[in-house]
Amino acid sequence: MIIVKVIKPLVSTNRIPDFEHKHLQVVQDGSSKKVAVDAVGAKPGDWVICVGSSAAREAAGSKSYPSDLTIVGIIDHWEPDPPKASSSSAPAPVSASAPATPPAKS
Amino acid sequence: MIIVKVIKPLVSTNRIPDFEHKHLQVVQDGSSKKVAVDAVGAKPGDWVICVGSSAAREAAGSKSYPSDLTIVGIIDHWEPDPPKASSSSAPAPVSASAPATPPAKS
Amino acid sequence: MIIVKVIKPLVSTNRIPDFEHKHLQVVQDGSSKKVAVDAVGAKPGDWVICVGSSAAREAAGSKSYPSDLTIVGIIDHWEPDPPKASSSSAPAPVSASAPATPPAKS
Amino acid sequence: MIIVKVIKPLVSTNRIPDFEHKHLQVVQDGSSKKVAVDAVGAKPGDWVICVGSSAAREAAGSKSYPSDLTIVGIIDHWEPDPPKASSSSAPAPVSASAPATPPAKS
Amino acid sequence: MIIVKVIKPLVSTNRIPDFEHKHLQVVQDGSSKKVAVDAVGAKPGDWVICVGSSAAREAAGSKSYPSDLTIVGIIDHWEPDPPKASSSSAPAPVSASAPATPPAKS
Repeated sequence: MIIVKVIKPLVSTNRIPDFEHKHLQVVQDGSSKKVAVDAVGAKPGDWVICVGSSAAREAAGSKSYPSDLTIVGIIDHWEPDPPKASSSSAPAPVSASAPATPPAKS
Repeated sequence: MIIVKVIKPLVSTNRIPDFEHKHLQVVQDGSSKKVAVDAVGAKPGDWVICVGSSAAREAAGSKSYPSDLTIVGIIDHWEPDPPKASSSSAPAPVSASAPATPPAKS
Repeated sequence: MIIVKVIKPLVSTNRIPDFEHKHLQVVQDGSSKKVAVDAVGAKPGDWVICVGSSAAREAAGSKSYPSDLTIVGIIDHWEPDPPKASSSSAPAPVSASAPATPPAKS
Repeated sequence: MIIVKVIKPLVSTNRIPDFEHKHLQVVQDGSSKKVAVDAVGAKPGDWVICVGSSAAREAAGSKSYPSDLTIVGIIDHWEPDPPKASSSSAPAPVSASAPATPPAKS
Repeated sequence: MIIVKVIKPLVSTNRIPDFEHKHLQVVQDGSSKKVAVDAVGAKPGDWVICVGSSAAREAAGSKSYPSDLTIVGIIDHWEPDPPKASSSSAPAPVSASAPATPPAKS
């Protein structure tokens, strides 16, 4: 299961009927956004556990539910990893996946 | 589920008969292109939700349909994340995954 | 589904009998090589669609076939993305995933 | 299966009832944290094998258990790969995925 | 299927009984190590094909076997891609995923 943060509900009027009335939530997984079916009633800002693979279907309610990512639990307390910047005098990198390359001095 | 942008239909004359008459769409997932079975009638330029894993099969119509990525909904409004460049005077990087390293000056 | 290029057949004399007589093809997926079961008769150089996940089994012929990547269609025309180098006077990077950092001049 | 290190148990009071009383463990997989269902009684600091995909369900006890990552074995002895820094006089990089680019000298 | 190199057997005394007596092998997949169930009798140093996803279960012997990565064939001859360094006078990078950025000269 992955640990993600709930961002906001997703509105999709034109969608397959199999989703029924369940809520879809936009979640932040590291540097990318994904969409998860909400099985626990999460709110924006919550840190949650999402299950993927074929288990996401049963977790969403039935074996034929078309989910590949389902929110299955709200974490009581979660401290995300701090940014990777180790020196307080250096500017913090915007993203951990974008290596900061200082310009060369002459 | 992932959030991707529809690029264009894919033409594959020589393909297995199991795909039947469903449309295949080329979609942009971050910096890579993938192919998804269209279950909602999406058009190029639409931001859509795609389901993967084993749920992609049922979402495409039946448990034996050979899809691992199916478009299941069109998002009403979607604002993609802005490029990671934070300074307006600096040139925007072409791709967020290709860190631009300016040549050193002397 | 992913879009890959067929490189060459793979020879594996010592393999499980479940593969039967189907051909295995080495395919290029971005910067990595994978092996796919060929269900359409692709040739080296062809750009093809590969299905993964559990759908790869049925696409290869039966629910118990041990494939997790099956070639399901040959693309009629495909133009791969050009290299990310934007300046024609600069040497093209060997790989899009290996950011080229020109040595600084003085 | 992947090789990960157990960090600590995860507390999630509001979770779907399908998890029953099994323990959830936070595990370190390379540079990211994940959550796994514990089927062997691992302790923080243990190096363990986790199974994913649909096999994680049966490994957790039944075909309908909603897991996509299950701890299935404790490794007797495991030496993780050393950091990639090759020179003892150079400062070790904080993360192997964040290439350190020394500032140019003039 | 992925192409990996067998490193050594993995010893895990405390593991779920479902693995039975099958051998587990540590394999090198690019820059990361994984664990695969051996269905063909591979030896350290062999280049092998591994199947993942749900097909890994049947490939390991039965639909309920808890594997998500199973060695299904030994490749007769395999030449791994050479390191990405293109100049013979430049030192070879330790890892293809860690782009080497030479310090600027003046």
